[in-house]
Formats: sequence, C-alpha cells, structure tokens
Amino acid sequence: MVNHKLQLVGEQARTAATTLGQLSTTTKNELLEAMAMGLVDNQAAILQANATDLAEATGLKQSFVDRLTLTESRIADMANGMRQVAGLDDPIGNVDKMWHNEAGLLIGKQRVPLGVIGIIFEARPNVTADAAALSFKTGNAVILRGGKEAIRTNIAISETFRAILQAHDIDENAIQMITDTSHETANEMMQLVGYIDVLIPRGSQRLIQRVVETAKVPVIETGAGNCHIYVDAESDLKMAADIAVNAKVQRPSVCNAAEKLVIHSSIAAEYLPTIAAALEANDVQLRGDDRARSIVPSMVAAEDDDWATEYNDLIMAVKVVDSEDEAIAHINHYSTKHSEAIITNNYQNGQKFLQQIDAACVYINASTRFTDGFEFGFGAEIGISTQKLHARGPMGLNELTSTKYIIYGNGQVRK
Amino acid sequence: MVNHKLQLVGEQARTAATTLGQLSTTTKNELLEAMAMGLVDNQAAILQANATDLAEATGLKQSFVDRLTLTESRIADMANGMRQVAGLDDPIGNVDKMWHNEAGLLIGKQRVPLGVIGIIFEARPNVTADAAALSFKTGNAVILRGGKEAIRTNIAISETFRAILQAHDIDENAIQMITDTSHETANEMMQLVGYIDVLIPRGSQRLIQRVVETAKVPVIETGAGNCHIYVDAESDLKMAADIAVNAKVQRPSVCNAAEKLVIHSSIAAEYLPTIAAALEANDVQLRGDDRARSIVPSMVAAEDDDWATEYNDLIMAVKVVDSEDEAIAHINHYSTKHSEAIITNNYQNGQKFLQQIDAACVYINASTRFTDGFEFGFGAEIGISTQKLHARGPMGLNELTSTKYIIYGNGQVRK
Repeated sequence: MVNHKLQLVGEQARTAATTLGQLSTTTKNELLEAMAMGLVDNQAAILQANATDLAEATGLKQSFVDRLTLTESRIADMANGMRQVAGLDDPIGNVDKMWHNEAGLLIGKQRVPLGVIGIIFEARPNVTADAAALSFKTGNAVILRGGKEAIRTNIAISETFRAILQAHDIDENAIQMITDTSHETANEMMQLVGYIDVLIPRGSQRLIQRVVETAKVPVIETGAGNCHIYVDAESDLKMAADIAVNAKVQRPSVCNAAEKLVIHSSIAAEYLPTIAAALEANDVQLRGDDRARSIVPSMVAAEDDDWATEYNDLIMAVKVVDSEDEAIAHINHYSTKHSEAIITNNYQNGQKFLQQIDAACVYINASTRFTDGFEFGFGAEIGISTQKLHARGPMGLNELTSTKYIIYGNGQVRK
Repeated sequence: MVNHKLQLVGEQARTAATTLGQLSTTTKNELLEAMAMGLVDNQAAILQANATDLAEATGLKQSFVDRLTLTESRIADMANGMRQVAGLDDPIGNVDKMWHNEAGLLIGKQRVPLGVIGIIFEARPNVTADAAALSFKTGNAVILRGGKEAIRTNIAISETFRAILQAHDIDENAIQMITDTSHETANEMMQLVGYIDVLIPRGSQRLIQRVVETAKVPVIETGAGNCHIYVDAESDLKMAADIAVNAKVQRPSVCNAAEKLVIHSSIAAEYLPTIAAALEANDVQLRGDDRARSIVPSMVAAEDDDWATEYNDLIMAVKVVDSEDEAIAHINHYSTKHSEAIITNNYQNGQKFLQQIDAACVYINASTRFTDGFEFGFGAEIGISTQKLHARGPMGLNELTSTKYIIYGNGQVRK
C-alpha cells in the first residue's frame, strides 16, 4: 500500500503537470531566471541549512562531505546552471516530422512533456537545482527525494523555488521535495504507478540497483561504467598513452572514466612500458594479467574480479589480447555498456569496433571522458542512460520528453 | 527465483541477439522470404496442429474460436505479411543525425536492435508470425509466450521458422516459443531481468494490466482505448455523423474504436437526432446523460461507470457539454490516452484541442480508427503504445530499435 501522504504528493504533481505542459517557453524561461535569482537572494538561509546538515554529518568520508558542502560560489554555480537551462532551446511543441498518409491525413509527431519525473539521489544538493531546472524547462513536474544527510539543504533550495513559483501564480507543486528520508518512503515512491511517469536514480551503483530492482514505475537506469580502452595492433603510441591517461586520471571517480586497458599482443612489448609509465606517473595502480606483468613487472596481479569491477579510483587493470575479436569479446562480456574506445589507425578495425561493441557510446581515437551531455553539445544532462529503452547515453532536455501524434483531417473515415 | 529452464531460454536469446544484430539487411530479408515460404510449405502440419487445438477449445466464445482458427487463406495472409516486412526499410544501422562537437568529435546517433523482445499474447496465432517477422527484421531475438488454447498451432509455426533459420546457419534461438503455458511460467518470464530488454503484451486489457503490474523487465503498455469524439459548436453535421459512425461501428472490438460521443449543448438539439439515428441504424446502443436523453429519448440512461468504460462493442455513451473546456476536462479525466478526436470548423478550437488533450493520437476532423501502424504508413505494427516512455502511439519497426552513439575522433582528450 502506498501511504496517503505520498499519494497526495503524486496527485499534486499530476495536477501541476497538466498546467506546466501548457506554459509558453517565455514564461518557463522567466521563471528559471527568477528561480536562479531566488537561489542567490536566499543564500543566507540555504547556507544556514547546509551548515546544520554538515554539523550532523559526522563519521562520513571526506569526499562525501565535500559533495554535501555548499558555498556562496557553489550556489552561484547552481544559479548559473539554471540560467543556462533557460538559454537552451525548448523542445516542447516541436514537431519532429510531419507527413501525409494515404487517406490524406497530415500526421505530425510532436514533442510533449513526459508528465511527472521522479528523481532519487544522494549527497549532492546541486541535483535539486539541476533536476528542477531541467524538469521545469521540459514542462514536467518533478518529485525529488534526496539523501538524509542533505535534507535541510535540499528543503531550503526547493522551498526557494516553490516560493518563486507561487509568487508568479504557477502551481508550486511543479517542484516537490519529499521531506521524509526513510528507506520505506523511498520504496513507496518507487511504487507510485499512475503518478510518476519515469524515475531516474542518480548516485552510487548501489542506489541505482536498488531502484531498478524495487521500482514498479518505469526507471531509466543510469550510471555504472566499466569502460575499456582497446589499443589496436596498428595504432599511435603517443595517442594511446594520452587517451589512456586522460580517460583514467582526468576524473577517476566518474562513470565515463576508463577502468581497463586492453592491448594487442603484437605491440604490447613496445607500447606497455610507455603507457604504464605515463599512468604510474599519475599515481595509477596497474593490475595486469600474466602477459602484461611479464612486460611491466611493477603491475599487481589482476584477480578474476578485476575485469568486472568499476573502481572509480586511480586503479586500472591491463589485459593483453591476440586479436581485435578477442578484445571485442572480452569487452562485450565485461562491459556495463556505457563507453568503450578503440585506438587504431586501421580503417576496418575501427569500423568493426563501432559496429560490434554493444555500448551507449563507442569511440574511435578519443577519450571515453567525452560521454557527457555538455560535451555532446546538449547544453544539459540529467544523467547517462545505460539501458536501451527510451534513452541511451547522455540524456539532455529531449530525453525528458515524450511525443504525441497530432493529426489534421477534413472528414476522413477509415474504409 | 527464475526457473532454470526459462533462464536458459533467456541466455539462448541473448546469445542469438549478438549475432542477429550483425546480419545484413539482405540476409534478413532472404530469411523472411524463406520463413514465409516455409509457412506455406508446412501448412498441412500447421493446420493439423490447429485442428487439435480447436478440438480441445470447448466452451469458448465463438469470437475467441474464430481468432484461434487457421485456414489456408489465413496462413497465406501470414506469409504475405512476412514478405511485406521483408520489403520494408531496415532501420538498423541508420544514423538519425550526426554532428561535430566543440572538441571536433564527429558524433552519430545510430539505430541498433533493442536485443531481446518478449511478447505475451492470447488467442491469435498470427501474432507468432507477426512478432517473429518484426523482431527478426530489426535484429532482435524474440521470446514468445502465447495462450494455451493455441499452443500446438504456435509451436508448429515457430518450429517452422526455427527449422528455416537452422537450415540457413542462423541461430534458431532468434525465435523461441515458450511451450509451458502455465501462469507461473508467464510470471517468471516477466522477471527475466537482464535477459529480456522489453516485454510487449498483446491481448485483452486484463492481460496487459497483469503484465504491467507483475513484470520487473521493462514493459511497453499497449491497448486500452476509451476514445472520444467531441462535436464542437461550430462543426459540420454530416461530417460529425459520418465520423461518429465510422469510429464506432467500422470495427467495434478494437482499441481505436470510439466509445463516447461528447457534444456541445448549442448544437445538441439540432445534431443529436441525426447522429443518434445514424448510429442506431448501425445497431449501436446509445447511453446518454440527462440532457442527451431529453433530446433523444430512445437512449438508455448512462451510469457513472459508463464514462470510463471501454465497451469494445456496439455501445456508445453520449454526453452534452457547455463548452470546449468542459469537453477537454471530461476527456482528459476519463481518457485512456489512446486516440481522441474533435469535429470542428473553428481554427482556435481545433488547435486548442490538439494542444490540451493528453493522448497518443489527437485528431481534428477524422476518425480515431486511423490510429494504426499501417494507416500511419509504417508498413507494420507490433502494437499501439499508450505509455509515454520509449514509444507512444502505433509502433512500427523503428520502435523496436534503440540507438548507440558512434564517435569518430583523432586523438581527442577531455580538458
């Protein structure tokens, strides 16, 4: 049974969604600007709430506390992020294509909001501003459920937005924050069939798995990236080393960072010492299979578990293969279908890799770190989908929309 | 716990999907032609299996038995349907769009198969051929689970296809039929997370609801259509009557048939007698609200339940409203978001209806019966989605695909 309070949240979101879908782009953009300004105007209260959250955040990892902490500059960043969303093209109402059918009907496929989006996230309070802005821009109501460690901060931010909406005569339930941070309430939110059109979990692999396994409402699975760099027999050593280093160390904690290096045996002896030295110079611990270790003895021995592990850390496992086919089979077996790259100068090998690797993003001669809505040019990102239904890869505004067919006739009946 | 046998089916489908996704369009079309020919070549055995199924089909409604029954001509239709699928454009491999990002990467959004499609359906054995053809053409493996009443027929058809695949050295597990027709096995199929990428139920509203409520794998909800025809104050009486009759009686059992007539009070007295007479002349039972009955006394009194009911029969409920806003509010409240139509000569009223009605297909001056993949020009249809995620409205080949980003670089690393 869904509890009454949560059902009310769902009903309020549905009602808000009805009016949101009809707002003009101008109105939505003005409101986004006003909400951005509200964040800055209200920063004293937000920082106060954050200070209280932080005071209770004892015994947490420093990296976690860092993600939780707001400063004036971070609030300014959040506000600027909202202004950027205001500046993006509004997909709602656009007609992707339009054609006449045999009966002479003019059929158009028009972008419409999804309706109500649920977001379950962890420590970072900036997700509140981010998700609210992207949902609002696409005419969707949003129900947010953040982690308990940031609850006061999240409430202060969402109440700021709701006050602005109210002051502009927009249904403030367009943005709702669930204040009860119990696991039970999160689980019940995942059962709100008929109220939530899509649930997007943002955070650790553990959180995402729990949502995927528990939810009855449709989920878009985001996140996990056990990404590989495959260095082909015909390839450029410097490019391979540069990309391996960038993909591994530029930001090791994120899902598009590379976790594995796969290298062709015919160039392993020549390339591996250089690539390994470049990685080790960046404090990367290397874990190799036997052949890799015979070339670079400083590597730790990789265990079976290593091939499937997303480290999110300065660790990289190295495997030597005898063919591109072996590389592709290995990657397709262990990949989380996020982002995979080949380094090659061979035309056929590159095309084959693109075709045969099953992943959201497949690269030739580039770092996997580019898998990102901003890098792709979408101007925004709500997450990176690793599933195949609805959206795959970086999700921008367009991925927060559905479509409806609008059909113009002049009396047609079916024969 | 998923039972071992079903898990094996899932594993076999996944393995088949890997090779299917790499088949050329020519190979797929040749196989579809061969499978179509196989159906005809093997029709004696298929009809024999069907006769056994029919012999056991005692105590079933005549309409159900009719859907179950195969004849030489129906098998020829199935074969022709498969040949038509062979003739359609293959979406797999197409790149929908391609652009350069700021770093100079060339990013393409390419159509790829979903992977493994599950279909749960009821009596009609032609779904086996239909779903197999559409899945195969889009490079997807399919796991079929039909109703127990047609199990021998379904097995005869699917084994025909599998023999053809095997003879052409294609993994026959591209097409698998679950032979155990128990509810438990169907329920377990709905839990095959990691094996089935999307489950599409085809059949009664009861079946679809059970799948939506039970499944852990992603489902595309199809079907239910409580469709409305709204006759606006400014409209053409003859057009309104023609469309109401066509939408109601041309095929009353299907989801895009109209179930409700909503009419503006300012023309109700003039229009209703003519429209009602046209419907009654086609054996439609009319159920009216008080105002409709005061104009056409032959109408039965509509109950509260009527407004939400999909009759799938020669019954239509009639409601008189005082404004388009009231019509839109009524429709959005009771609609199953399938297909809705307005009959109007007023530009603003038409556009408002298109914008404010929340449904997969919204019509001006045309029958709701056009909501169909063939009528839309897709050349095929696996079902009509009434949900907003992934696909909405008639689903053709394109809706059985996902995408991946293919990215061409020349050494780019992220700054």
